[in-house]
Amino acid sequence: MPRIVDREERRRSSADAVFRVIGREGMDAVSLRDVAAEADLSMGSIQHYFSTKDEMLLFALNHMRARVITRFEAKLARMKNPSKRQYLRTMLNMLLPTDDESRQEATVNISFFASSVNNEQFRELLRQGYAGLLVAIELQLQAAADAGELREGMDSKTEAAQIFYTAQGLIGPVLLGVTTPRRAVALLDAHLDRIFRD
Amino acid sequence: MPRIVDREERRRSSADAVFRVIGREGMDAVSLRDVAAEADLSMGSIQHYFSTKDEMLLFALNHMRARVITRFEAKLARMKNPSKRQYLRTMLNMLLPTDDESRQEATVNISFFASSVNNEQFRELLRQGYAGLLVAIELQLQAAADAGELREGMDSKTEAAQIFYTAQGLIGPVLLGVTTPRRAVALLDAHLDRIFRD
Repeated sequence: MPRIVDREERRRSSADAVFRVIGREGMDAVSLRDVAAEADLSMGSIQHYFSTKDEMLLFALNHMRARVITRFEAKLARMKNPSKRQYLRTMLNMLLPTDDESRQEATVNISFFASSVNNEQFRELLRQGYAGLLVAIELQLQAAADAGELREGMDSKTEAAQIFYTAQGLIGPVLLGVTTPRRAVALLDAHLDRIFRD
Repeated sequence: MPRIVDREERRRSSADAVFRVIGREGMDAVSLRDVAAEADLSMGSIQHYFSTKDEMLLFALNHMRARVITRFEAKLARMKNPSKRQYLRTMLNMLLPTDDESRQEATVNISFFASSVNNEQFRELLRQGYAGLLVAIELQLQAAADAGELREGMDSKTEAAQIFYTAQGLIGPVLLGVTTPRRAVALLDAHLDRIFRD
């Protein structure tokens, strides 16, 4: 048992090393050798944990998602009894690159996207990511509608799609500094103001 | 003079070859050698037109923008006296990957974005692209507001940002097939319905 735990732990810390390399130098730069250096492991050890670069990258993408979900849940736990609006706001804001960690994640995601042109496994993982988030937002808005928390005439499915794609569309421009994290959050808040009664 | 024209023409047709290579295989794959093969030119000719890979890619990105603007203007010209809403709708829909040409352009843009992590020239060009589009949409909505074409209580700057980022956020999901071009257009139309009186 200790050896299995150790293996998973090593794979996770290698995944963090992958993010650092991609976040700093882009996807082109990532080789098993670079990650070994970044994670302070020998090439032999890295190859023991991942047999190919793609296997390493897929593990890294999944690990990143787990990391985001853990952070999301920790935020919710600190809020105690959040309203549906607060829950949704927290989820949307987590998508934005507002600090070093989320900037790194956004950069890595864009690199995966660019590499997915000729990698169907990446494409499928990205599809699942988008679809999962969209459904989560739809469910939250539907629950808010059922509880009478939305303004009259709101179609929760249309509003969910609009606010989700707005958040998605803000990621690149915030990363480049076309707009600021503060203005991005304000834009999503303006949308939530329009949807929710209060 | 003919030699200059020829040079520009050769550079442009090489730029189209760059798009085909990136659109098919991603940015990693693009080398002067690949583009030479794709454009049916010798390595010597390609190096005569572009001294580095980055110079070629920057030229290609600018050429792509010129290509999109030409297409946009041709569409407007076919519409004859378009309303402000039609103008804006046409501009927003052009951003979406709805056919082979625009899919290729969206793929190339994402590749540039991913490569911009460690390329400040790419970053600046992308920033200008986002900022230019956002301003164009803002101006169009402001003109519509001045002409009394917007519904009451609409803040043209907020609405411009929301609809622009929604369109941006739809690009990736449409490329992956998470949503369809038709639904993406309908979502933007629903937004325009909300902003415009009719």
